[in-house]
Amino acid sequence: MPAAAPAGHGKTVLDWINAVVPPVFQTMAGLSAQPGTVFHPVHQPLVLQGVAGAIGLSGKVSGMVYTSFGKGLASFIAEKILGSVSSEQDLSDVVAELTNMVTGNLKSRFSDSGFNCTLTPPSVVTGNKISVNPKNCTLGVGMEFLVEGCPEPLCVYFFGVFNQ
Amino acid sequence: MPAAAPAGHGKTVLDWINAVVPPVFQTMAGLSAQPGTVFHPVHQPLVLQGVAGAIGLSGKVSGMVYTSFGKGLASFIAEKILGSVSSEQDLSDVVAELTNMVTGNLKSRFSDSGFNCTLTPPSVVTGNKISVNPKNCTLGVGMEFLVEGCPEPLCVYFFGVFNQ
Repeated sequence: MPAAAPAGHGKTVLDWINAVVPPVFQTMAGLSAQPGTVFHPVHQPLVLQGVAGAIGLSGKVSGMVYTSFGKGLASFIAEKILGSVSSEQDLSDVVAELTNMVTGNLKSRFSDSGFNCTLTPPSVVTGNKISVNPKNCTLGVGMEFLVEGCPEPLCVYFFGVFNQ
Repeated sequence: MPAAAPAGHGKTVLDWINAVVPPVFQTMAGLSAQPGTVFHPVHQPLVLQGVAGAIGLSGKVSGMVYTSFGKGLASFIAEKILGSVSSEQDLSDVVAELTNMVTGNLKSRFSDSGFNCTLTPPSVVTGNKISVNPKNCTLGVGMEFLVEGCPEPLCVYFFGVFNQ
């Protein structure tokens, strides 16, 4: 039976997002990522721009993690990682892998707190103004990051419900 | 460890999609849904138009189910179900519920065949030419349905990987 997220879960999840995102970008691309605007709650529909990663969680916590990269940011990071000008396929692969790493680290935090879950494979969604409505979720939070060397922000969102 | 889908899984999943979709539309909206074009495999990126539902599966089978409704079809069905002209929120809720029912029935088929899984909450994605790349999936199949009284087709897609 779905339960409302206990007080503080939003803050906790935001702390985890802030703890896991910068090391992923440092390790993968050698780039610092500084936290910016916090979204708590995220107003729906969520509008994604450019290239977005999506991974589902299912178990004691169920929901979705979305990463939203402007196309310029995705290209910039892909070139840092791959060392050359990148194709659409490269952008998609890089966004999927970064989303995998961020979500895998969040999964560990959830599991360590008693909310075991398993993950779906990643999907990458591209388009202009993609409007997303996650349903049946009691919590929706997000955080913007400013990646060194690129003016376009990265956004990481979590929508979920905690099951007893 | 991911295993390639055994021979026949594509055909099996298509048979299941064909078995579960028409009863959902008959029960919910009193409308017949006739199978049309089959996609086996689905070429990536998958392009969704209008209003699309998405639910993740995780477990012995992991992946995504997508339903793709043209906006006219979503409005037509929502009015059949709700009995009045529908708001954007109504369309989104109806697409989420239909996607839930289709995916819940598919989950039962997977579980009955030894591929237990749990589901993420549904998301509804709207936009013009939403391009989706499901990653790490060994199977991608889809089926078009023609819903009585509306020229726009419904498409139902499954992308997944079978874990041993």
